[in-house]
Amino acid sequence: MSRYPEPMGRLITELTRLPGVGPKSAQRLALFILQASGGEIKALIDAIEETKKKVTNCSVCFNLTVSDHCDICSSQDRDRSKVCVVAGPQDLIAVEKTREYNGLYHVLGGIISPLDGMGPENLRIKELLKRLGSGVSEVILALNPTVEGEATVLYLTKLLKPLGVKVSRIAYGLPVGSDMDYADEVTLTKAFEGRREII
Amino acid sequence: MSRYPEPMGRLITELTRLPGVGPKSAQRLALFILQASGGEIKALIDAIEETKKKVTNCSVCFNLTVSDHCDICSSQDRDRSKVCVVAGPQDLIAVEKTREYNGLYHVLGGIISPLDGMGPENLRIKELLKRLGSGVSEVILALNPTVEGEATVLYLTKLLKPLGVKVSRIAYGLPVGSDMDYADEVTLTKAFEGRREII
Repeated sequence: MSRYPEPMGRLITELTRLPGVGPKSAQRLALFILQASGGEIKALIDAIEETKKKVTNCSVCFNLTVSDHCDICSSQDRDRSKVCVVAGPQDLIAVEKTREYNGLYHVLGGIISPLDGMGPENLRIKELLKRLGSGVSEVILALNPTVEGEATVLYLTKLLKPLGVKVSRIAYGLPVGSDMDYADEVTLTKAFEGRREII
Repeated sequence: MSRYPEPMGRLITELTRLPGVGPKSAQRLALFILQASGGEIKALIDAIEETKKKVTNCSVCFNLTVSDHCDICSSQDRDRSKVCVVAGPQDLIAVEKTREYNGLYHVLGGIISPLDGMGPENLRIKELLKRLGSGVSEVILALNPTVEGEATVLYLTKLLKPLGVKVSRIAYGLPVGSDMDYADEVTLTKAFEGRREII
């Protein structure tokens, strides 16, 4: 049985290590790479290397940045009394896309998930608590509505409440544009619990 | 609105050029790359660069190889009277995985698809015809059972038949383990046409 020649086999193995890439996609990517021009591949490799070299975490909120403080932490237009806690930089970008929130962020670096070996000690919780002295009046927890997200919300609330800071969480409810008929019971229950008076 | 810092944005753009990678997967890949160790990234880049540098096409059958002749063309155990025509190296690997075929191959480099700008002149058809002198008695066409594959089969048959070589194509029919009830009419018609006497 013939297989791909050695460097190609190794490339396929390396590509399957990437998230969401199985053996078939890895093969497809490897064939694409083989057929792509030298310039295209150089642009890709340069982008990888430059990202690895230049992008680090903000020393305050742990957002991605190329300098010591990220755009948001160094901006003068941001409301410094609010801190929105998110699991990762992708969630920060998702909140930013709403253009509705103008406070600061704190990137936890994950959520509590014992099955994945993520305990509170692996998250940037100490760093969050340290930030609370300087005029922060509200911490908004914007974590995934999953068991792990819920556990992290409970854990953080217990730590934050005694410090006299307002703690809120983003709402559970029906996604806009969805169909009530297709909503699961838990979501519908949460939507009822979270009902708001119409004035 | 805050976005990813520049090298990261560029990396995401580069990654979306890869086949099957949309903006969300590109973001996920970029975050993975950012968090991966330097060694892991180096292994990936080395594999890409080595593949680009070393892997070429076999000068006879256009299979992928690191030398002038591929493993199959240079093997002494192969039946040199049969040539299996495939569209790309991935199809050659698929046929090899059956462990049932022991002849040679010819990689066309695509199929006739006018919509994608692929005409017969873009395929390695001249190179196939040149190979037929040297003791080849059968050409097996193993192309995708699509309109484009069909067109390529017709085109090649017209060229090959007058040269006195036996031309065959792999069978249309029901996939093994499938349900007749769910087979489409065209497949079922082809399965009837291709019925074989039980002896």
